[in-house]
Amino acid sequence: MQRRKFLQGAALAAGGAAATSLATPAIAQTKVDLVIVSTWPRDFPGLGISAQRLAGRIGELSDGEIAVQYFAAGERVGAFDSFDEVASGNAQAYIAADYYWKGKHPGFAFFTAVPFGMTTIEWNAWIKFKNGQVLWDELSSEFGLKALPCGSTGTQMGGWFNKDIESADDLKGLKMRIPGLGGDVMAKLGASPVSLPGGQIYENLVSGAVDATEWVGPYNDYFMKFHEAAKYYYYPGMHEPGGGLSFGMNASWWNGLSKRHQELIKVCCYEEHAAAYEENTANNGLYLSRLINEHGVELRSFSEEIYESFGEASAEVFAETREHSRLAAKIQDDFMANRAEIGGWTKLAEVGFSVRRNAVLDI
Amino acid sequence: MQRRKFLQGAALAAGGAAATSLATPAIAQTKVDLVIVSTWPRDFPGLGISAQRLAGRIGELSDGEIAVQYFAAGERVGAFDSFDEVASGNAQAYIAADYYWKGKHPGFAFFTAVPFGMTTIEWNAWIKFKNGQVLWDELSSEFGLKALPCGSTGTQMGGWFNKDIESADDLKGLKMRIPGLGGDVMAKLGASPVSLPGGQIYENLVSGAVDATEWVGPYNDYFMKFHEAAKYYYYPGMHEPGGGLSFGMNASWWNGLSKRHQELIKVCCYEEHAAAYEENTANNGLYLSRLINEHGVELRSFSEEIYESFGEASAEVFAETREHSRLAAKIQDDFMANRAEIGGWTKLAEVGFSVRRNAVLDI
Repeated sequence: MQRRKFLQGAALAAGGAAATSLATPAIAQTKVDLVIVSTWPRDFPGLGISAQRLAGRIGELSDGEIAVQYFAAGERVGAFDSFDEVASGNAQAYIAADYYWKGKHPGFAFFTAVPFGMTTIEWNAWIKFKNGQVLWDELSSEFGLKALPCGSTGTQMGGWFNKDIESADDLKGLKMRIPGLGGDVMAKLGASPVSLPGGQIYENLVSGAVDATEWVGPYNDYFMKFHEAAKYYYYPGMHEPGGGLSFGMNASWWNGLSKRHQELIKVCCYEEHAAAYEENTANNGLYLSRLINEHGVELRSFSEEIYESFGEASAEVFAETREHSRLAAKIQDDFMANRAEIGGWTKLAEVGFSVRRNAVLDI
Repeated sequence: MQRRKFLQGAALAAGGAAATSLATPAIAQTKVDLVIVSTWPRDFPGLGISAQRLAGRIGELSDGEIAVQYFAAGERVGAFDSFDEVASGNAQAYIAADYYWKGKHPGFAFFTAVPFGMTTIEWNAWIKFKNGQVLWDELSSEFGLKALPCGSTGTQMGGWFNKDIESADDLKGLKMRIPGLGGDVMAKLGASPVSLPGGQIYENLVSGAVDATEWVGPYNDYFMKFHEAAKYYYYPGMHEPGGGLSFGMNASWWNGLSKRHQELIKVCCYEEHAAAYEENTANNGLYLSRLINEHGVELRSFSEEIYESFGEASAEVFAETREHSRLAAKIQDDFMANRAEIGGWTKLAEVGFSVRRNAVLDI
């Protein structure tokens, strides 16, 4: 009750600042309030640190013209309530994975990551230099939002299991924490997907409420201590090959900002989008070694057979997603066309080179 | 003569601004002059556009507090004179590929790209979240410079040839434009490497002064019209698998900036570092199709045999580079250790996934 009253006060203040900014866009010194609600727990290694770094950066580079308040998951609203908090104007921005909102519209999945989708560099190219951002804007605007990429995990691990997963049959009846369309793929193969925010996975895995979980990769997963409850760590994940986390803003607030403040927020989001990916990439190798050598984790590769099953199930999921709406189909078609074109290039370039380098150098 | 006089005037003005800024770092409004000399011709698709975008961004986000003047190659100094222009303090920053300066110190090669080196995401992780930037700073400071990454091409093509390159024997006697340590590898295999700035390659290839050239990738190369003089387009390039272009600043000038201006320049450089890579990745597939379908270019893959030869020659080059100095060895050792650790991770993740996805989807 008290919280709600505080929220309304904050919303009024923010609305006032935005209106002033709209009336006098040339006056860059106008103070703007930016309340950010995050889906990550405070000081969460990887994702949480990245979100807090972004929040700090916006305040710092604007020389305090944008007054940022950052609330971690649960500090103001629960992780999964952040969408409504921002859409309603109670806060100005959320930091989340947009596939958390696939219940509101399945098109959101494409703006985080989808099974057999694009790797991060492919997705970035689509968002920033092809039609991706335009489509994202079209979708977000239906909910009064404007989103930008603000972080990436890179290609994720396939997940933590407490038994061997040798064929798709081994997935049957498995209760697994896996959100987004990746969860739908698992359901097609007979598993029961569950969507839980990061802060609640460990307790569910330890208690046996879920049998398996995916999260991110070795660096982020290490601190989640999943290895205490599951020993088989599978790669590569088919469900989140890359893509982005979202800085989802209230669209009216965004539209009321000066051009320079918009550019500043955009550049900070883009920079953190790169930094989060690089931080994960820098640390994953080291933490994978620790998991294996210090905690007895067994690293396993998904077989080609199971990848074929994942592929078939994904095709079914995409066929259903496409039928949701005209916009869902439009997003999916554009995504698929770019996956083929951009993916055709990376096959020759980054991937083609890496395979040969690794063979010559025995990496 | 007149130019030199103008330069001295500019240097004095810049020096004055820096000194003021140093004396009163808390006064963010202090006007700072930033003269950038670039190694790319004006409006050059890809690299030139990227450099101009970065220059504009710094001015815009600082709300004019940093007054940027951008000079393309030849507009103030020749491309390869930009290092001395900035080291001497005549200009505040260059935009270049640091391997152009390997004659000054071979360690510079590692801060652009080296044969069998890291892909861009691997290199970014090393620079920003491992020891890369610290080592780069140690090297640059020997020349009065401070450099940041400000653009990336991604994995480059192997180059343009006017004959089949089936084995290392076909490289013997070939005069090829290829700078950096990649050129040294070609020399080990009997070719004659030449370093030419971008604006001079076409005329040399058409006249037959060089037999072959590498540049970047389909998007950048398309506008260079190399296909008019060479029809065989080889991939993947072993010589520049990824890495970065440099925003190389005069160190005294950089040290005199306020913390906020330093952060602003850093964020703009990092953002453009990502954007340039993404722009290339977004366009390379499309332009490769055009080269093949509209200009009769023949796409060829380097054989595994020739990759083995490249690998052996690279090992010889690295052994020599290492002996240059204590610092060269330190940079190389750290680079190699991170290539193994980070490369081991991307092998499981981005590369491992891409290979499986491409197989299932026939990409």
